[in-house]
Amino acid sequence: MKPAVRRAARPFACAVLLASLAAASHAADPTTIEQLKSGTDMVWMMAAGALVFFMQAGFALLESGMSRAKNAINVIMKNYCDTCFGAVAYWAVGFGLMFGANASGWIGTDRFLPHAMPEADYGLLFFQMMFAATAATIVSGAIAERARFWAYIVSSVLITGLIYPVFGSWAWGSLFSGQGWLREMGFIDFAGSTVVHSVGGWSALAAILVIGPRLGRFGPNGEARPMLGHNLTSVALGGFILWLGWFGFNGGSTAAATVGIGKIVLNTHLAGAAGAIGALAVLALGRQPVLMTAAVNGSIAGLVGITAGCHVMEPAYALLTGFVAGGLSVLAGWLLEAGRIDDVVGAVSVHAVGGVWGTLAAGLFKHDAMFDLRQLGVQAIGCGVAFAWSFGTALLMYWLLARGVGLRASTLDEQRGLDFTEHYEIGYPEFQQDAVHRGKR
Amino acid sequence: MKPAVRRAARPFACAVLLASLAAASHAADPTTIEQLKSGTDMVWMMAAGALVFFMQAGFALLESGMSRAKNAINVIMKNYCDTCFGAVAYWAVGFGLMFGANASGWIGTDRFLPHAMPEADYGLLFFQMMFAATAATIVSGAIAERARFWAYIVSSVLITGLIYPVFGSWAWGSLFSGQGWLREMGFIDFAGSTVVHSVGGWSALAAILVIGPRLGRFGPNGEARPMLGHNLTSVALGGFILWLGWFGFNGGSTAAATVGIGKIVLNTHLAGAAGAIGALAVLALGRQPVLMTAAVNGSIAGLVGITAGCHVMEPAYALLTGFVAGGLSVLAGWLLEAGRIDDVVGAVSVHAVGGVWGTLAAGLFKHDAMFDLRQLGVQAIGCGVAFAWSFGTALLMYWLLARGVGLRASTLDEQRGLDFTEHYEIGYPEFQQDAVHRGKR
Amino acid sequence: MKPAVRRAARPFACAVLLASLAAASHAADPTTIEQLKSGTDMVWMMAAGALVFFMQAGFALLESGMSRAKNAINVIMKNYCDTCFGAVAYWAVGFGLMFGANASGWIGTDRFLPHAMPEADYGLLFFQMMFAATAATIVSGAIAERARFWAYIVSSVLITGLIYPVFGSWAWGSLFSGQGWLREMGFIDFAGSTVVHSVGGWSALAAILVIGPRLGRFGPNGEARPMLGHNLTSVALGGFILWLGWFGFNGGSTAAATVGIGKIVLNTHLAGAAGAIGALAVLALGRQPVLMTAAVNGSIAGLVGITAGCHVMEPAYALLTGFVAGGLSVLAGWLLEAGRIDDVVGAVSVHAVGGVWGTLAAGLFKHDAMFDLRQLGVQAIGCGVAFAWSFGTALLMYWLLARGVGLRASTLDEQRGLDFTEHYEIGYPEFQQDAVHRGKR
Repeated sequence: MKPAVRRAARPFACAVLLASLAAASHAADPTTIEQLKSGTDMVWMMAAGALVFFMQAGFALLESGMSRAKNAINVIMKNYCDTCFGAVAYWAVGFGLMFGANASGWIGTDRFLPHAMPEADYGLLFFQMMFAATAATIVSGAIAERARFWAYIVSSVLITGLIYPVFGSWAWGSLFSGQGWLREMGFIDFAGSTVVHSVGGWSALAAILVIGPRLGRFGPNGEARPMLGHNLTSVALGGFILWLGWFGFNGGSTAAATVGIGKIVLNTHLAGAAGAIGALAVLALGRQPVLMTAAVNGSIAGLVGITAGCHVMEPAYALLTGFVAGGLSVLAGWLLEAGRIDDVVGAVSVHAVGGVWGTLAAGLFKHDAMFDLRQLGVQAIGCGVAFAWSFGTALLMYWLLARGVGLRASTLDEQRGLDFTEHYEIGYPEFQQDAVHRGKR
Repeated sequence: MKPAVRRAARPFACAVLLASLAAASHAADPTTIEQLKSGTDMVWMMAAGALVFFMQAGFALLESGMSRAKNAINVIMKNYCDTCFGAVAYWAVGFGLMFGANASGWIGTDRFLPHAMPEADYGLLFFQMMFAATAATIVSGAIAERARFWAYIVSSVLITGLIYPVFGSWAWGSLFSGQGWLREMGFIDFAGSTVVHSVGGWSALAAILVIGPRLGRFGPNGEARPMLGHNLTSVALGGFILWLGWFGFNGGSTAAATVGIGKIVLNTHLAGAAGAIGALAVLALGRQPVLMTAAVNGSIAGLVGITAGCHVMEPAYALLTGFVAGGLSVLAGWLLEAGRIDDVVGAVSVHAVGGVWGTLAAGLFKHDAMFDLRQLGVQAIGCGVAFAWSFGTALLMYWLLARGVGLRASTLDEQRGLDFTEHYEIGYPEFQQDAVHRGKR
Repeated sequence: MKPAVRRAARPFACAVLLASLAAASHAADPTTIEQLKSGTDMVWMMAAGALVFFMQAGFALLESGMSRAKNAINVIMKNYCDTCFGAVAYWAVGFGLMFGANASGWIGTDRFLPHAMPEADYGLLFFQMMFAATAATIVSGAIAERARFWAYIVSSVLITGLIYPVFGSWAWGSLFSGQGWLREMGFIDFAGSTVVHSVGGWSALAAILVIGPRLGRFGPNGEARPMLGHNLTSVALGGFILWLGWFGFNGGSTAAATVGIGKIVLNTHLAGAAGAIGALAVLALGRQPVLMTAAVNGSIAGLVGITAGCHVMEPAYALLTGFVAGGLSVLAGWLLEAGRIDDVVGAVSVHAVGGVWGTLAAGLFKHDAMFDLRQLGVQAIGCGVAFAWSFGTALLMYWLLARGVGLRASTLDEQRGLDFTEHYEIGYPEFQQDAVHRGKR
């Protein structure tokens, strides 16, 4: 490398070290506007994808905080590991199923184990991988404190690699050739109220039905008994992190820097804010105390709700969408508890219910075609199909897991706590002396 | 959609689904450099805005960690909810007051309940909304452990929607037409040492004076009694998150990608670092132990201090600005405690004192006009006006709240802890058995 | 400023206030593509740098969580303060040594106390400052619970200002003129598997050897006794934050928006995921329980491993690199424990071992020259030199500190916990009554 070139390439820092990248950073080769646009789009998508990754931490904290201390680590570990195993599964199979060439409109058929792809496609794969992990991780909180670790991981891999991407191919496929049949119909789901959140939420419902409630969660006459989350600071921090991640989740789904990001991000924020307010409003109407957990869940429901239509609504309707989603999250939570559904974190009421409402709202409040009944019908079909597919396949999957390898921890293990029985680790050993003495470690 | 177009639009992922965005992503329509610049500016502002949003989590953790466990959730909940209610208030009223057309120089008069705005303006609204939330949330820590929840929320909405934006219109207005009178004078406050932090800090002082110290905080002879924060891990994490957010706070305030971001971000970091060092230096001179809480607060004071002038100083002066701000935060904390001001987190010494110093420093250390007395005078006027307006209006507001609906929790509630009395929730129920047994839940 | 100009400059928000920036944002001066490219590169580098900064919080939480509660704050404080003091040291000396004009290939000789640098160079200084802080902070966890605070800070400043940048100048120098001798040889280390992580890891090993194990960590016959981390939630959150930061660490090291970011970020994520899986696989083979701490450390080892070659590998090899690194982190941890090396967080097995493996892997799996023995030789030389330099100088430094000012806390202080003896602060005073009563505060 001649000194003159070296000096010219100065701003490229470490990149300049690399023969393989030298061409791209060669100063004599001026950047074209197309290259720069690709680069800018990639910067946005990678920054947004990083934020979506961080949502895993948000889920882990929120779910762990809502569980009892004896399961704190097991819950976090499930989130940590579904990201890890799910990433490999999505790279190997899921991406191809979801975004590969899709001649039939029903499934992608190439781009498995992708390699030697163009740069932009690697970026997309990364971004979409984060979405797949989100869909899968929604289940972990719903069935916290009683699901066996490896059975959970297997189910998570199947959601990431199969259940989620197949539905995704209908609504979002393909990036390459062919078009999913739901997309062909004009189904609107910008960043996945249905594709990600409802699919995750309905899978969670199936899992809850198969695994049953925690020991002691409902009394002999079916009355609900509170099982308090062990760390509400974790819950709140989890909520903040999820909210932060949502700016990437929705904002990054433009996959382009020049396409309406400002409105999307603003709508996302307003809906999250209104979601918390909606939840508190329902609590107030029901003469209930102002629960922090409800505010956090309400804001997440608002964020779930706005995910489908954040790009087509005016802010006032984003507020309305979020407000209703937040309120519904509280009402649905009451309803599910009355039905003896033990959803530790409210995954079904937040992600499934919020997702359905948000998908409908995207049809109702589309700024250039408000209250278009045809669009609303398409949205309803999409919601119904998502339920049928994800609830159905997940129910089968969890049932097979329960019959086969066993999905639920033994009663003794559940009583001792899965942290100790699954991982031989205690979350806070100095503050849980009983848990420490219980084991022989 | 024809296959040819679909393939061409490939890199746009989900966006390609959307009729309403189709024009923007149409491959036959090459992006102009102006469009790309707008897109790049927007990417930066949204990424920065997301970081500023995350500062809410930082405030929540820092303030909660500095409080006792029985109020941990109440403090976090105040931060969570002032973001939510404040977002709606700022969208409805605050943005218009602050940045709307401002013919008089004293107040914005349009852009209320904004809708159908250009994309760039939605982005600005989002970014500025995050700033408004920051100003409001500064108060919550100062009056932690004794303020009633709903009274706090009302005050927070009034700060976000009224007190903050009116002052903001003087210093930063307008983006559309007319110019605030302080801005007309040449007042320098790049990202809000005064506009955001002093306004928040002086409001906090007013709130403290109205509400009074916590029960038992000062003995019968006025001697201070320590009330230890319950979770210093939270405090430190809060500090880290705030510091992270500040890169967006200052860096994003360019609102443009091509304007001096590198120097601004570097100066921000150096001032934060020097702030902690300054605080430790004062402790060492005072023969005090090396408090982590002082280091965290010192760094935040340094960040507050550099906020006004990060764009006009050379790094050495950013270091100096931060160092002095950090030292002052410790000294001011001692002074306030001696004056029986019970500021739980040091909001006044960090945000008000740090903000005043930083605003003066922006005049003193402006690289192209060092120690310009005229500029220093303008800066002092700005600081004085900020004090008069925000302390005055906040004092009135808190006094009215105290007289009207009641600002302070009852003695019994304060003793039991606001987590239980306001929210029926306990932060760490398994580690606070006494708190759990205290209630009937 | 005339109204017409003001309206035109509208999108520039606060920037428009500033005389000093007026030229850059002047609407009559259209942005060139070169300016826009610089701006986009800067946006990416600053966003990435902010993420790398946040890794300090990740290290602080992970290290503190792995320590006992009586040292929780001391560990965090060390991380907080090495960032602060290190920033000043790197600005004053380190950057010049590392990236200054380097005619000899052995050391940079200008750009000390930099001021009035071009904008792009300020951005680079910020980004590189974050890397320096990472290298230094790796040590703090390794010698947690027994190192004196100020001795640690001194050592940290010397690593940031001297040990790290001198080696860095060999591998990455210079950005201005001249070229480091390792770089001249064709040594590949994209973002610092060796430059940052091995240097930090070998320094940690030196520190451990000088300071010795914690009291009671090994029994009279050398048998290891577990000392459980006090807060595994912190550990997991720290792991998530580190992972998040790595997208900036590797992705930002392109220092340019148009250079292969997508593949780098994807490879980074896959390697982290595979690292955790590799660690769990080794545990399973060793019939050990599925430790969360091992999964977290495994993923970090995977991230360390891919740091050198993330830009030259295809995804399948990134997976393999991460998988092996994760497995090695467990094996090395067992080996070190057997050798009575008390590394509280596994810094040596994660950062040093993972870094060496990753650097070799970058040579082995370079997509356009797989298994090139000449390249592998260069990589091995780089690893060897890194060990010799950093272990050697660090050993001398810690030995001198131990002899001179004292590196290890007194036995009494170690028993009481450094939180109380160094800082007069208790991490969780309401849950550590014994610690509170122990002191007179």
